[in-house]
Amino acid sequence: MFLTRTEYDRGVNTFSPEGRLFQVEYAIEAIKLGSTAIGLKTKEGVVLAVEKRITSPLLEPSSVEKIMEIDDHIGCAMSGLIADARTLVEHARVETQNHRFSYGEPMTVESTTQALCDLALRFGEGDEESMSRPFGVSLLIAGHDENGPSLYYTDPSGTFWQCNAKAIGSGSEGADSSLQEQYNKDLTLKEAETIALSILKQVMEEKVTPNNVDIARVAPTYHLYTPDEVEAVISRL
Amino acid sequence: MFLTRTEYDRGVNTFSPEGRLFQVEYAIEAIKLGSTAIGLKTKEGVVLAVEKRITSPLLEPSSVEKIMEIDDHIGCAMSGLIADARTLVEHARVETQNHRFSYGEPMTVESTTQALCDLALRFGEGDEESMSRPFGVSLLIAGHDENGPSLYYTDPSGTFWQCNAKAIGSGSEGADSSLQEQYNKDLTLKEAETIALSILKQVMEEKVTPNNVDIARVAPTYHLYTPDEVEAVISRL
Amino acid sequence: MFLTRTEYDRGVNTFSPEGRLFQVEYAIEAIKLGSTAIGLKTKEGVVLAVEKRITSPLLEPSSVEKIMEIDDHIGCAMSGLIADARTLVEHARVETQNHRFSYGEPMTVESTTQALCDLALRFGEGDEESMSRPFGVSLLIAGHDENGPSLYYTDPSGTFWQCNAKAIGSGSEGADSSLQEQYNKDLTLKEAETIALSILKQVMEEKVTPNNVDIARVAPTYHLYTPDEVEAVISRL
Amino acid sequence: MFLTRTEYDRGVNTFSPEGRLFQVEYAIEAIKLGSTAIGLKTKEGVVLAVEKRITSPLLEPSSVEKIMEIDDHIGCAMSGLIADARTLVEHARVETQNHRFSYGEPMTVESTTQALCDLALRFGEGDEESMSRPFGVSLLIAGHDENGPSLYYTDPSGTFWQCNAKAIGSGSEGADSSLQEQYNKDLTLKEAETIALSILKQVMEEKVTPNNVDIARVAPTYHLYTPDEVEAVISRL
Amino acid sequence: MFLTRTEYDRGVNTFSPEGRLFQVEYAIEAIKLGSTAIGLKTKEGVVLAVEKRITSPLLEPSSVEKIMEIDDHIGCAMSGLIADARTLVEHARVETQNHRFSYGEPMTVESTTQALCDLALRFGEGDEESMSRPFGVSLLIAGHDENGPSLYYTDPSGTFWQCNAKAIGSGSEGADSSLQEQYNKDLTLKEAETIALSILKQVMEEKVTPNNVDIARVAPTYHLYTPDEVEAVISRL
Amino acid sequence: MFLTRTEYDRGVNTFSPEGRLFQVEYAIEAIKLGSTAIGLKTKEGVVLAVEKRITSPLLEPSSVEKIMEIDDHIGCAMSGLIADARTLVEHARVETQNHRFSYGEPMTVESTTQALCDLALRFGEGDEESMSRPFGVSLLIAGHDENGPSLYYTDPSGTFWQCNAKAIGSGSEGADSSLQEQYNKDLTLKEAETIALSILKQVMEEKVTPNNVDIARVAPTYHLYTPDEVEAVISRL
Amino acid sequence: MFLTRTEYDRGVNTFSPEGRLFQVEYAIEAIKLGSTAIGLKTKEGVVLAVEKRITSPLLEPSSVEKIMEIDDHIGCAMSGLIADARTLVEHARVETQNHRFSYGEPMTVESTTQALCDLALRFGEGDEESMSRPFGVSLLIAGHDENGPSLYYTDPSGTFWQCNAKAIGSGSEGADSSLQEQYNKDLTLKEAETIALSILKQVMEEKVTPNNVDIARVAPTYHLYTPDEVEAVISRL
Repeated sequence: MFLTRTEYDRGVNTFSPEGRLFQVEYAIEAIKLGSTAIGLKTKEGVVLAVEKRITSPLLEPSSVEKIMEIDDHIGCAMSGLIADARTLVEHARVETQNHRFSYGEPMTVESTTQALCDLALRFGEGDEESMSRPFGVSLLIAGHDENGPSLYYTDPSGTFWQCNAKAIGSGSEGADSSLQEQYNKDLTLKEAETIALSILKQVMEEKVTPNNVDIARVAPTYHLYTPDEVEAVISRL
Repeated sequence: MFLTRTEYDRGVNTFSPEGRLFQVEYAIEAIKLGSTAIGLKTKEGVVLAVEKRITSPLLEPSSVEKIMEIDDHIGCAMSGLIADARTLVEHARVETQNHRFSYGEPMTVESTTQALCDLALRFGEGDEESMSRPFGVSLLIAGHDENGPSLYYTDPSGTFWQCNAKAIGSGSEGADSSLQEQYNKDLTLKEAETIALSILKQVMEEKVTPNNVDIARVAPTYHLYTPDEVEAVISRL
Repeated sequence: MFLTRTEYDRGVNTFSPEGRLFQVEYAIEAIKLGSTAIGLKTKEGVVLAVEKRITSPLLEPSSVEKIMEIDDHIGCAMSGLIADARTLVEHARVETQNHRFSYGEPMTVESTTQALCDLALRFGEGDEESMSRPFGVSLLIAGHDENGPSLYYTDPSGTFWQCNAKAIGSGSEGADSSLQEQYNKDLTLKEAETIALSILKQVMEEKVTPNNVDIARVAPTYHLYTPDEVEAVISRL
Repeated sequence: MFLTRTEYDRGVNTFSPEGRLFQVEYAIEAIKLGSTAIGLKTKEGVVLAVEKRITSPLLEPSSVEKIMEIDDHIGCAMSGLIADARTLVEHARVETQNHRFSYGEPMTVESTTQALCDLALRFGEGDEESMSRPFGVSLLIAGHDENGPSLYYTDPSGTFWQCNAKAIGSGSEGADSSLQEQYNKDLTLKEAETIALSILKQVMEEKVTPNNVDIARVAPTYHLYTPDEVEAVISRL
Repeated sequence: MFLTRTEYDRGVNTFSPEGRLFQVEYAIEAIKLGSTAIGLKTKEGVVLAVEKRITSPLLEPSSVEKIMEIDDHIGCAMSGLIADARTLVEHARVETQNHRFSYGEPMTVESTTQALCDLALRFGEGDEESMSRPFGVSLLIAGHDENGPSLYYTDPSGTFWQCNAKAIGSGSEGADSSLQEQYNKDLTLKEAETIALSILKQVMEEKVTPNNVDIARVAPTYHLYTPDEVEAVISRL
Repeated sequence: MFLTRTEYDRGVNTFSPEGRLFQVEYAIEAIKLGSTAIGLKTKEGVVLAVEKRITSPLLEPSSVEKIMEIDDHIGCAMSGLIADARTLVEHARVETQNHRFSYGEPMTVESTTQALCDLALRFGEGDEESMSRPFGVSLLIAGHDENGPSLYYTDPSGTFWQCNAKAIGSGSEGADSSLQEQYNKDLTLKEAETIALSILKQVMEEKVTPNNVDIARVAPTYHLYTPDEVEAVISRL
Repeated sequence: MFLTRTEYDRGVNTFSPEGRLFQVEYAIEAIKLGSTAIGLKTKEGVVLAVEKRITSPLLEPSSVEKIMEIDDHIGCAMSGLIADARTLVEHARVETQNHRFSYGEPMTVESTTQALCDLALRFGEGDEESMSRPFGVSLLIAGHDENGPSLYYTDPSGTFWQCNAKAIGSGSEGADSSLQEQYNKDLTLKEAETIALSILKQVMEEKVTPNNVDIARVAPTYHLYTPDEVEAVISRL
């Protein structure tokens, strides 16, 4: 019953009688309000595609960054609170640079993801790096390391999973179904681009243009597509 | 329902069941109470114009600063709580000076904007530089760096966007519509001045005079218009 | 509606749904309970005049200090909680002395005012110098520096304005109207004294005597009038 | 209305909508429950007289200390919470000793009073010397320095006033009226003793004896009257 | 009215509108639940007597310590929370030992009492030595120093009084009346023992035995009576 | 009665009138929502088997880690919040490495378990390593040291027990009954594998495949079964 | 009245109007839910006996430790929250080891008990060693030092008593009555074993076996009985 629930859900980090952490669940709701992002892993590399909500024609589309580079070999797409995502990405950039400096080699994609989730888990603890509330953002982390390409999905609880393909954000339910139908392990990177964008097209309310979507690949290094490259993918739909 | 909402909106940094951060949304309301500010980017540079509410004829108009210089190549217009804006601007001034000192070159406009937003995002964390509540202010940051002129818009959530033109404050809704109609990328700086002031005139309740508006440009350096220069723009309306 | 308001107004530093900071607004109310103070800027210097509420004939009038010296070239009149004002003035005195020591020259009036407002803005943050609530005091800061005479007005939100003339405290509404009628930029210091005291006389319930008003000028150095000097001004009314 | 007030008055340091600090006002109430104390300043020195409430004949009257020495040239009478007063007096003793040690001369009475009030103002701030609530005590501080004799009155808000004569505690209202009638600046110390004790007699419910009143003078050094000296004053009534 | 009171009485250290500190008053209530203790001062020394509540015949009576030695020349009887009393006594033991070590002489009884009360007053301040609530204990401190024998009584507010005789705990009201009737300053130590035990006998529900009372004297050094010595006093009743 | 209970169950670490710690009990509820894990101790070593809930065919099964290595000779299976478990395991890994480094020998299984439980018990205390809420996870810790193989079971209260066999998670009730029927101390490791998987099969809703279960043994070193090894066990059912 | 009580009982360390500390009383309730433990002191040494609740036949009985060694000459039985007891015992072990190291001799049983109670009393104070709630455990501490054998009983309030015999836990009421009937000071250690176990048998719902009870003695060193030794005592019943 809703009235009973409200007794437990404002403590930032408190269990309800059923063993639930409502603030984390509400942060997960924040992501359902976010724009849709899609990731697909192929043997050639990983493709990320995101919807950019350009609320006004006066906004500079390139400044609405929903795909960001973490290191040469790692990029991520995000859905939810963008300012939270920037904090996480900045943290990951420092971690990967420190790792390169200390060990002379790139950080693995899993370690990078774990470092991001450690920060996300520690909310409400009052130390210097952590937030006073859960991070309201999910990430699709695409990378390429000694184990080949990989795609990770993180949520606000600090949990992460490795995936072959995954959609996050407001259109994720429909997009995930489409991904399950269309995904197979032998896709080429080019086919993955087309699938990602065609699914994004279904969940977006407007016509897809280089202005309102972004595409990136990690194959094996991070590359954000230019408007012309995006246009080329659109033209293949 | 309003009663239910009130259960969640006083925790400084707490998600509601729908995944919303009400204190941040209320801080955004504070800006809707503020005076109107307008920014336009042209190829020649960026123009900022603000309404100054002179509540008493005994106030010194020049002391109501709503456009401030951050560095030689960056200025900003503000709407909302002025004391909060001063804290943010002071923080940005230190950051840009430190950057010049450490690297021997000016900080880019985007990095400066990011530094401002990092501070804004960290409210409620209790460390030395952050506030115990969201900053109740929006900024239009005009700058000019190696990438040419740029205009950024920040809100109390610590999010920022790059824009071609943007209005903030109590008259922003009408002003944004007018900007969309009148803006094009080939405007001259002089045309931008005229558009900014004519739109400001529409949303202000009083006659526009050099006493109740301020205009500044970054083209490529920051310059706050003298009363005579403002008068000259007014006379072109 | 009042009942709804009470939900938001006890958090020391929390926005209401309309974007308001009630604790700051209530501190501003504290000033409306305070005694009236008036400041006027002339080309020759600045005049400050305050009402002293002598609640008992057994009180030593000179110990009710409502005009205080900050530095040779800066003084201030106050309305609201006197103990809070003393803390702010003590802070400003240290700042101006430090500035003289470090730079070998007096601090400007604006920098001094900014330093006072920085302290006022930081309430509720728990560090050593700040208060756990807003400072319940407004100041009229009169000074004289390389830019000539100046008069600043600060409120509990940490905002400040430069003025030609300003009244604060319980009688400020009527006094401000009178100031607007009688003020012009060509007043002599002597005329300003007369105007200040005649307006104070209107808002005070008792007969004006050297015991229940204080007058000071900064022209160009701070001087608190002796009872005889006050008597002389009274005799001119 | 009382119900509304209760919404604001438990935050240790929070303004009510009318701009009031209720916890400080309630601490002031604590003093109205205290025993009566009276101070009178004469040209020869200052006299302090207090009622001692001996609740049981088994109590040692001399252990109910309501007049205490701060330094050779400063003493104080108190009303309210005695344990709080002891903390303030101990603080003042350290301050005056430090001053003597650092500067080789006694601290002025005003500086001593200011030091006491600084401590009183800082309640609720959580640092080492301050209390977590207002000090529930008022002091009458009698002293003699280069400016001659002086009498200060402090309240729990950290505000202080210089007085010629003042009563505090449960009988202060009546005592203050009597003081206003009987006080004049040309009183001898001996006359002041008589007035103080005769007024104390009016507000006390029991017969005045050396057991239930204390008298002290600072003229120019602190001296607490012996029972015989008190008896001598009583016999003059 | 009780309902209104409950609004103020849970803040550990908050004034009510009438200027009362309820948590301290409630701690004083805790003492009224405690066992009775009695102290009498004679010219020969001080006698302390306490009731020991032996809730089970399996308890070792000597382990129910309600009279404890602080230093050779100081002992105390307690009523209220025994664990709190142990903390206070331990603090006092360290203070008196430090004093002996630093100054080569015993600490006076008043200074020892003041040190105990300083600790009691500082509850709720969060530093290392203080408690987060008032100490729920009253002490009768018996000592002998250069000023001869003395008896102090402390309560949870950190206030102390010097007494000739005093009872604390659940039977204190009746015991205090009896003490007032029977006490005179010329009692011998032996008479004081008899009075203390005969009064204790009145307020205890069981027969007095060496198992359920303890007696100690400071004359001039602390001595806890052996069961035989207690038996001897009992036989004199 | 439920309404009364809600009065006590949100304080993170507060006793209810019946002496219960509800937040810990609610964290234990969180485990009943988790996937099932089973451990069996044999003379040859310990077997752990877990259900992996693969919510989407696009997830990489190997990234859903519910059995983790702590040290060469210790592994653990988990049920509940996976991010919490990772924090505990990471803590245990550091402890066991430190122990090896300091003492040149592996940490015993019991000491490792105690170290994990110490961290779990310290929630809500605000220091650097502890969480602000109970850890919402149970662990089955399998190890092999100088005392031979051992199996420990921990719950969110920081309590641990040594077991011969134990099931945790949503299917634990039924699984525990089956374990009691089928377990005996003379099982071979191979038989234990078969029993663990056959019981897991009963409580899982889907067909058991190498994708949705994990098996590991500590005999005497930790080994996570490959899909082929899991398939071999499945084929024996 | 229960409703009134609930107003006071959630503050961790707050007095109720009657002077009670409810959180401590509720922690005492936690012990009434615990398993029964019994201690008897004889001239030959002290016997401890506890009920072990083996909730599942798969649990290793020896891992349910309810009697623990503190030092060679001190052991303790516990009832209540086992994880809390482990923290206290670990603290006591460090204290006794430190004492041996510093003074070259064992710590007395009373000093060890006092050290445990000091830690228990300091809950809610936020320093490193203390808990944020009362410890929910009672201990029976059996020891042997220069004063011969001794038995102490501690409760969650940090109070301790010396006893000849004592029962704690859910069956303590009945067990205490039986102890009073059967205890006398001339019991042999063997008789004490028999009495302890026969009383434990009465309060336990199941048949007594070496699996569900533990017995230990300190005579003069700590020894936990082997299953065979326990069986021998059982056979004497």
